[in-house]
Amino acid sequence: MVIVGSVAYDGVETPHGKVDRMLGGACTYIALSASFFTQPKIVAVVGDDFAQKDIDLLASRGIDLAGLERVPGKTFFWAGVYSEDMNDRETLATELNVFANFNPKLPDSYKSAPYLLLGNIQPALQSAVKAQMDGSLKLVGGDTMNYWIGSFRDELLKTIAEWDFLLINDSEARMLSGENNLRKAAAKIIGMGPSILVIKRGEHGAILWHGDKHFMVPGYLLEDVFDPTGAGDCFAGGFMGYLAGAGIDLKKSDVNANELRRAVIYGSVMGSFCCERFGVDRFRTLTRREIDARFEEFKEFTSF
Amino acid sequence: MVIVGSVAYDGVETPHGKVDRMLGGACTYIALSASFFTQPKIVAVVGDDFAQKDIDLLASRGIDLAGLERVPGKTFFWAGVYSEDMNDRETLATELNVFANFNPKLPDSYKSAPYLLLGNIQPALQSAVKAQMDGSLKLVGGDTMNYWIGSFRDELLKTIAEWDFLLINDSEARMLSGENNLRKAAAKIIGMGPSILVIKRGEHGAILWHGDKHFMVPGYLLEDVFDPTGAGDCFAGGFMGYLAGAGIDLKKSDVNANELRRAVIYGSVMGSFCCERFGVDRFRTLTRREIDARFEEFKEFTSF
Repeated sequence: MVIVGSVAYDGVETPHGKVDRMLGGACTYIALSASFFTQPKIVAVVGDDFAQKDIDLLASRGIDLAGLERVPGKTFFWAGVYSEDMNDRETLATELNVFANFNPKLPDSYKSAPYLLLGNIQPALQSAVKAQMDGSLKLVGGDTMNYWIGSFRDELLKTIAEWDFLLINDSEARMLSGENNLRKAAAKIIGMGPSILVIKRGEHGAILWHGDKHFMVPGYLLEDVFDPTGAGDCFAGGFMGYLAGAGIDLKKSDVNANELRRAVIYGSVMGSFCCERFGVDRFRTLTRREIDARFEEFKEFTSF
Repeated sequence: MVIVGSVAYDGVETPHGKVDRMLGGACTYIALSASFFTQPKIVAVVGDDFAQKDIDLLASRGIDLAGLERVPGKTFFWAGVYSEDMNDRETLATELNVFANFNPKLPDSYKSAPYLLLGNIQPALQSAVKAQMDGSLKLVGGDTMNYWIGSFRDELLKTIAEWDFLLINDSEARMLSGENNLRKAAAKIIGMGPSILVIKRGEHGAILWHGDKHFMVPGYLLEDVFDPTGAGDCFAGGFMGYLAGAGIDLKKSDVNANELRRAVIYGSVMGSFCCERFGVDRFRTLTRREIDARFEEFKEFTSF
């Protein structure tokens, strides 16, 4: 499974505390999350300030770093502060640094991977990465954000037309479709290409559309949300990681729709763990046993 | 099943249209919703302007109107306008009229009913109604609102201490408990007396707490939300109506926890139907067959 996106340093303040600088970035969260299901290969760029201990963490999770380019300059830095209820956040700093000239190049060893997850970068770059794959893809999809939807719409539409799945949040789904109602929004987005759509709703869970059916899962009720940064990316990593680990091939007609539902649950599980500590800290100790236990909890609190 | 609360006229404006005056009130919505499961008996007051056609609608659903008092003056009138996304509403008018002196008196024929649902009125009145019951109650509970939580806190705490269940929305749960986190809020509220707590989350569904377990259900995805007025009351009517219809006795130790979960689903089903038309209009044509079909839909879109 190949993952492209940002590897960054983040400064985060929540009602539970403040960290000035810690490992972050969409690609980081996706890869750490997916690493509990499969062996991710990342494509990203960092500066010469990127710490060995952060490399070590990624390597310790079995993540292939052949595509992690290191160039002179500083690593992408983002800082933000969350509201009291953590449903809103204000960006305090976005310093693209070496990420401004990110031009992802896939190592040869990545090109025959069957799974590709395109994190939130410029749509043309997402397409360029897909074009470098050698045609063995069983499943490709990704994420985007309001900036690309608003200012790069044509480029984005061309890009997602080639995807099997799109993972976005509810406000992005409304913006992309021009529909306030999520049922109508989903129908329009499916019409844009991806046969699978996952709409993430933060603490309110997620909705999967596939074929003429949808599947809804509530968000896990945490006792304490320390830091929601990266939760959506961890969802993506758990979703795609599970499908990759299970060897799902969308081109085969017998894909069990229930596998997609299970993938959404694993995505929800990973997003919930992410919020339990600051930054990526929860993934330093998390085990597959804990993940599967929480999967069973989802079953328990949603069954009737 | 006895229901106490307001029977009113409402003026409602949503992005889908405007109705200057139509049948409304919490007791009305609860009773209409519950009437698909059991025979509700209502306790309420209306003025001499209350229309025969509205009496006829309630009677046509088999609702016992022996406790519907008619006094000189005007019926309670409320008017409000919803925001574009219908998640907020502004109250334009609250004319209590005859409801200002509402002093609920139960007809003798009501006093041995096994189920009592106390709609959102002053907590002391809720207690006074409960005191009129002859002691055959199998299940009693109700609703409240921010006004009573804020300005009648002691009276409210004394009232709900005697209830089996409390049905409130998420912001009320946070206000009542002083906890922002819903898990912590629920634990505090359960400590106040009710062994069953249902937190309604509007379009995001509901959470049931009972014993050391919780159950979460997402909100039904409607293609069009015409008018959300009364949806929470219809949830309450479906929840309690189902339990009454099934003859659930909380005092027996063998209450099947799954029956409470099914009651939450029926509540969700009834709340969703309520939003499909203005005011109570959907209940003029709704059938039990449609209700059960939507119950099955909930199963389909939440199972994995």
